[in-house]
Amino acid sequence: MTMDMTFLGTGSAYPSPHRGASALVLRTDGDCWLFDCGEGTQIQLMRSQLRAGRITKIFISHLHGDHLFGLPGLLCRVSLNTNPNPEQNLSCVDIYGPQGLRRFLRVTLGLTGSQLLFPYAVHELEPTPEQSPEEGRLSLEMTTECGPLHPQEQLGRTISLDISSDCYLLFEDPKFVVKAFRLFHRVPSFGFCVQERDRPGRLKTELLKELGLKPGPLYGRLKAGESVTLESGRVVLPSEVLEEAIPGRKVCILGDCSSILGIGPLMLCTGADVLVHEATLGNEQKEKAVDHGHSTPEMAAAVARTCCALRLVLYHFSQRYKPSSLQKEGDEDCVSELRRQAEEALEDSSVEVILAEDFLTLPIPLRKPK
Amino acid sequence: MTMDMTFLGTGSAYPSPHRGASALVLRTDGDCWLFDCGEGTQIQLMRSQLRAGRITKIFISHLHGDHLFGLPGLLCRVSLNTNPNPEQNLSCVDIYGPQGLRRFLRVTLGLTGSQLLFPYAVHELEPTPEQSPEEGRLSLEMTTECGPLHPQEQLGRTISLDISSDCYLLFEDPKFVVKAFRLFHRVPSFGFCVQERDRPGRLKTELLKELGLKPGPLYGRLKAGESVTLESGRVVLPSEVLEEAIPGRKVCILGDCSSILGIGPLMLCTGADVLVHEATLGNEQKEKAVDHGHSTPEMAAAVARTCCALRLVLYHFSQRYKPSSLQKEGDEDCVSELRRQAEEALEDSSVEVILAEDFLTLPIPLRKPK
Ligand SMILES: [Zn+2]
Ligand SMILES: [Zn+2]
Ligand SMILES: [Zn+2]
Ligand SMILES: [Zn+2]
Repeated sequence: MTMDMTFLGTGSAYPSPHRGASALVLRTDGDCWLFDCGEGTQIQLMRSQLRAGRITKIFISHLHGDHLFGLPGLLCRVSLNTNPNPEQNLSCVDIYGPQGLRRFLRVTLGLTGSQLLFPYAVHELEPTPEQSPEEGRLSLEMTTECGPLHPQEQLGRTISLDISSDCYLLFEDPKFVVKAFRLFHRVPSFGFCVQERDRPGRLKTELLKELGLKPGPLYGRLKAGESVTLESGRVVLPSEVLEEAIPGRKVCILGDCSSILGIGPLMLCTGADVLVHEATLGNEQKEKAVDHGHSTPEMAAAVARTCCALRLVLYHFSQRYKPSSLQKEGDEDCVSELRRQAEEALEDSSVEVILAEDFLTLPIPLRKPK
Repeated sequence: MTMDMTFLGTGSAYPSPHRGASALVLRTDGDCWLFDCGEGTQIQLMRSQLRAGRITKIFISHLHGDHLFGLPGLLCRVSLNTNPNPEQNLSCVDIYGPQGLRRFLRVTLGLTGSQLLFPYAVHELEPTPEQSPEEGRLSLEMTTECGPLHPQEQLGRTISLDISSDCYLLFEDPKFVVKAFRLFHRVPSFGFCVQERDRPGRLKTELLKELGLKPGPLYGRLKAGESVTLESGRVVLPSEVLEEAIPGRKVCILGDCSSILGIGPLMLCTGADVLVHEATLGNEQKEKAVDHGHSTPEMAAAVARTCCALRLVLYHFSQRYKPSSLQKEGDEDCVSELRRQAEEALEDSSVEVILAEDFLTLPIPLRKPK
């Protein structure tokens, strides 16, 4: 299964002509999952090679406008690009995000008379008080839904923190387990961990032939982990005839934060193939960054080191950092300086540092068998 | 006073890389009034010569997303570009639009924790049932505000239709009278008429000198329309010493519509210097256009003719019409064909037809004295 990640916006605070607001797409075999959706994401999507109609799941890290204001328009756009085949039962678009998101969509889609061709559900994560200063917490009055459901809305779940693991289980399916975890920011913010399940190794076909087993349904059962009894009475165990399992990939995408809450998330993210972490301002502005609930390259590097990530991707840069391609000789705020700062902090480690830019596509290759 | 109009987005339905969603700025002596605010307007604004911080009034024609989804982000952006001088009492940004707009902003700004440096007020226009099919009307439940006011929100007015004139009086000040009027669309939509007040002609200074009047406060009183009594007892009337008055300019900007409701609006718009009217689809697709509550160039031309407008500006083109600059030989849907259709319908009139494109700036020159 191919897997890659495309950055649609890498700027903080607001979208600009040279850096979109936060949005990235994780693509697996053509299925697209969108992480955050700042204003203009639908335009960035049109500029990219991705197709809006392929978006099946959406994750919102926190409710700041630069991560959210593009969502109502994006949903309308996905609907426009959806094949309105009445025979086909369009599947539900699942949206995960902090409490309040359900009301945000219900009101914005409702007041604008936006009809969608597919159902959607908002699954809300219950934040805890430790995730933000008091003024960043929404009152009950603000998050309580009022008014009727949107015609295409299906009632989503409310997901609470699992205390023992310090995580939120969003969903599991045969291919993935997706969890969220708590970050500290000016408003409650979340990180997401997409864990691909390990996959069985290849069948040792030579050995199977020697055992007298021909290609067919029994191959499938062995690959699925079942034992098979031959006519001779010989029991063939999957472990005998399968190569080493292929470990699933792990992709961790963190929303805005100045720190991660608890130990659970660090354990969850251990060994990530890709860790996407914000780096809004350079190390020299650490105080300002932390004051605003943000991180510097050094802080992002510390997380990557603790998690033994293979690759650290920096994004969510202050709009003062122009993309390298627009950089001019003598420009002061140089985005490559942010990479240098992260690399310096990771000098004695094997973590690779990558600077995200709008429209960068990062392949996430299959892992080697253990 | 200089006056011009800049189109920030001229596309319908959604923003695309080659045509922004609806937004235009009317500028008078540096003061900017924004009409509609589709997603991405703040980005288009940055690409233009205009300054977000100069926006003092906002008018929303109707609540469709392609005219509204950019508003929360735009307000945040105006705030970022505002000088946070605590000495200065920042004046209120007045926002005019259909019922429901107050709730839209309260919820979107509130849930995203968006703080503004200036106060804002939403003045809501009460639509009437004739403005849309039944399914386009919002339920009371949808438009009723719930939740507390936004910290920077000042309670706006609710403006009802004045039956005798078929119009809504939005405000009058020493320079302008601004009214709205009803359009028919899939949801209640409005047009806006900005009427500059007539201005007194120049003082006949030669004549004043002959009368023995020297430049000073008396000049000002005469210009302001007051009579002045000389020491000799001679009364000088303003009409004696002023050149002909300079008639105020009139700019009419219509939201999405397939028709105008009532005769009042046509009288209001009579003699407009500029009439901005949508032309979503070509004449050959009139049925589809009207079905969707939209107009063709021929329909727009008929309005301009009835109103004896000096100039008709077409905008809100289906995204199928690429801008002329991106047009290739042999392309089918040619936006200049829309101009041709309007011109054809206005052949025997003196109305000038203009195609809006993103970033087109249209000067609106002073009228000549009558
Ligand atoms: Zn942010
Ligand atoms: Zn944030
Ligand atoms: Zn429209
Ligand atoms: Zn519309």
